[in-house]
Amino acid sequence: MPQGQVTTVPDDGLTTRQRRNRPLVVVHTGEMKGKSTAAFGLALRGWAQGWSVGVFQFVKSARWRVGEEAAFRALGRLHAETGEGGPVEWHKMGEGWSWSRKRGSEGDHAAQAAEGWAEIRRRIEAQVHEVYVLDEFTYPMKWGWVEVEEVVEVLARREGRQHVIITGRDAASELVAAADVVMETTKVKHPMDFGQKGQRGIEW
Amino acid sequence: MPQGQVTTVPDDGLTTRQRRNRPLVVVHTGEMKGKSTAAFGLALRGWAQGWSVGVFQFVKSARWRVGEEAAFRALGRLHAETGEGGPVEWHKMGEGWSWSRKRGSEGDHAAQAAEGWAEIRRRIEAQVHEVYVLDEFTYPMKWGWVEVEEVVEVLARREGRQHVIITGRDAASELVAAADVVMETTKVKHPMDFGQKGQRGIEW
Repeated sequence: MPQGQVTTVPDDGLTTRQRRNRPLVVVHTGEMKGKSTAAFGLALRGWAQGWSVGVFQFVKSARWRVGEEAAFRALGRLHAETGEGGPVEWHKMGEGWSWSRKRGSEGDHAAQAAEGWAEIRRRIEAQVHEVYVLDEFTYPMKWGWVEVEEVVEVLARREGRQHVIITGRDAASELVAAADVVMETTKVKHPMDFGQKGQRGIEW
Repeated sequence: MPQGQVTTVPDDGLTTRQRRNRPLVVVHTGEMKGKSTAAFGLALRGWAQGWSVGVFQFVKSARWRVGEEAAFRALGRLHAETGEGGPVEWHKMGEGWSWSRKRGSEGDHAAQAAEGWAEIRRRIEAQVHEVYVLDEFTYPMKWGWVEVEEVVEVLARREGRQHVIITGRDAASELVAAADVVMETTKVKHPMDFGQKGQRGIEW
């Protein structure tokens, strides 16, 4: 299978090892739900490497991703107990960010989204995690709650070994330009087209 | 967000609950590596539901998916110890299937692939797992080592609640036709285009 073959060698002054270990900005966009699933699959690999995984969900419904959340929280506990894999933090906007005093206060989603990004920015500058999953983070940018220029700037000058995975539809062109990897999941066929509803274990 | 909306109601004589809980055949195909990552993300949800997860890797290199394998094996042990989530089995062709006496014998990949499929078929007929991940299983079909007609037939008459996820490029049209969900991951941009090699925690 020809996957993983390098077809060109870049003229960027880096050694192969430096290029190999360059931290990435990965954007999973497109029309389908698969984009978050793929992002969490990637985070799973990071966990297995012993990396610290921080998940930040910019979604309103508490029901979303409960499967991934349960699995990653379990992996985080496993790390705490046995040292296997890496530590995991899972934060979500839906019920108020866990670090916030305003917890449980619904209402101002714009302010909550801005607060979430401010915390992520602090963590990136302090190099807290090796993997950040910013789930559905394209929407706060699309809606003007978080400035895409600031996000791109913070990502560009982040230090150390921090991979950042961003999911959501309609990723801003500035973000796509700044990303190292952009993946788009296309639906060829899906039962919701034929009236089937989402089901437990599959859609969440 | 309009995700999850049902736009039509099918005339299939099933109740909403029956449709909701219909076991699925999911095919992740396309050019990119993301397809397996997405498949394992989906299996993660199944684990969190307490489902039995069986992974069968039709790949040669032992290095592939080591991150996912470590994470899923950890989740399987967690289940065995605490009852959380579901049990996990992880089998790979690369070093000879674990149930096989011929273990460690490299060589006849066609025979190994056929043996792998025969075991999966037995398990589907015995309803052993709730989630099957048949990773890179499109290739043995493409190369004629496993008959796609037989696969489609076994999937079509499988009983109980068994979700089957198949990954790999060039899925046969009969398989696509038989699948409930077909997802294709398209690369918009990837560092390998610019000469960057795969890196630990990201590509495997």
